[in-house]
Amino acid sequence: MKGLSINLATVRQQYGFAAAVDACLAQGITAIAPWRDQVEAIGLEEAARIVALNGLQVTGYCRGGMFPATDAAGLAAAIDDNKRAVDEAAALGADCLVLVVGGLPGASKDIIAARGMVADGIAALLPYARASKMPLAIEPLHPMYAADRACVNTLEQALDLCATLGAGVGVAIDVYHTWWDPKLRPQIARAGRERRILAHHICDWLVPTRDLLFDRGMMGDGVVDLKLFRADIEAAGFHGPQEVEIFSAQNWWLRPGEAVLATCIERFRTVC
Amino acid sequence: MKGLSINLATVRQQYGFAAAVDACLAQGITAIAPWRDQVEAIGLEEAARIVALNGLQVTGYCRGGMFPATDAAGLAAAIDDNKRAVDEAAALGADCLVLVVGGLPGASKDIIAARGMVADGIAALLPYARASKMPLAIEPLHPMYAADRACVNTLEQALDLCATLGAGVGVAIDVYHTWWDPKLRPQIARAGRERRILAHHICDWLVPTRDLLFDRGMMGDGVVDLKLFRADIEAAGFHGPQEVEIFSAQNWWLRPGEAVLATCIERFRTVC
Repeated sequence: MKGLSINLATVRQQYGFAAAVDACLAQGITAIAPWRDQVEAIGLEEAARIVALNGLQVTGYCRGGMFPATDAAGLAAAIDDNKRAVDEAAALGADCLVLVVGGLPGASKDIIAARGMVADGIAALLPYARASKMPLAIEPLHPMYAADRACVNTLEQALDLCATLGAGVGVAIDVYHTWWDPKLRPQIARAGRERRILAHHICDWLVPTRDLLFDRGMMGDGVVDLKLFRADIEAAGFHGPQEVEIFSAQNWWLRPGEAVLATCIERFRTVC
Repeated sequence: MKGLSINLATVRQQYGFAAAVDACLAQGITAIAPWRDQVEAIGLEEAARIVALNGLQVTGYCRGGMFPATDAAGLAAAIDDNKRAVDEAAALGADCLVLVVGGLPGASKDIIAARGMVADGIAALLPYARASKMPLAIEPLHPMYAADRACVNTLEQALDLCATLGAGVGVAIDVYHTWWDPKLRPQIARAGRERRILAHHICDWLVPTRDLLFDRGMMGDGVVDLKLFRADIEAAGFHGPQEVEIFSAQNWWLRPGEAVLATCIERFRTVC
């Protein structure tokens, strides 16, 4: 299924790493994006062996980031942990390490300071990532996650941050997080001009959305104009796989993995 | 309680219009912002009589908007309904009519078209509002409401819209909807320069937020830096009351109204 990648969070309740890969391969899917806990469960070496053996494309490794901390030791620990994530991503041959940058540390109400810590943290990590030839993909998250997950919340903000950081860093553009943005189209075009697009994540925004975290929709079940989004991303010069990332506690995580993957393929063919 | 207004949605489960006013007055609160259904329940004339009799400031009337429609008849009906809302706001002597502009009509996935309908709808309403000397306050809503409530989602976008519309329109800036915005501070300053600030709504963003609609926090219980927000608004030249607007199905709506109002006053004094 050329052009389609499965973020393994989409089937995290159904499969471990190896079984998820088998299920993808059985339906012709040869690109994946695993999470650190999934790799840790099977072991990095075995995960890398499976990737290499099957010639899989790893469209991203989830995830680094979470930089803001209440003290310098916490920030240093975050950077160390991100270096390990870079190593793991490199061992898997991932296209990029996805950064969910983190929100407000502790009881802080200072989002401006948190954003400063994010910039400092990525800057501190970047030489290591460059030496490993592992691109860092800043993922702007939906503003409803600004407090607790990521204080980078628009593509414009992420690209501004990239511009200050220089080479070796780019963006992961997820339709779920960015579809609402009135500046989305020009900022996608800018991301292309500045050669920052590292990943394109898809799912859908459901109406109503019943949970802030675990109610993402399957492509076609929500309100995102996915074909327009894809056209903009491709016009901006990114032609990598679209990576399906669906957190769905009450729906897709409860279904057989094979059916979920089959639906991803069908929807990818028809609505993306 | 100078400087404090109560949006009556904050106590909508406890009081009707008249009882809410009595409860506010009993605690020295002389500014309110009612909703259309609350006014309709008591009758516009009686509501206006209560406002005048008690010398209340009406910091805003909730709400107009909801422009996008699936056909021309629907858009025309929305404009007609907004004219009635202007009349009601004028009868109450409100400072502004708050516009929650509406989201995607019907099964549409075209948010760009919806935004166009919003611009057209406000433009069509504006001469009527100007003739009634009733300022229209566009309220950018949090991006999590882009699909179903308001496709104006940042202060920058609202101000850009105001700039195209001209005189008679401004913005209602609500901390809940805008606190996350990386461009918030410069856009508040811009709103001041362009003389667009018509209202300042307060509450707080809770972590975790358990419901997209009805889990707003009392000031001080969340992560918003309310003092900084207020300082920015005042530096931008707006010195009207801060209007408390809390939708809280599992907490504040379940408490006695007197206790809710007393808490609003105490938090207004200490954390805002």
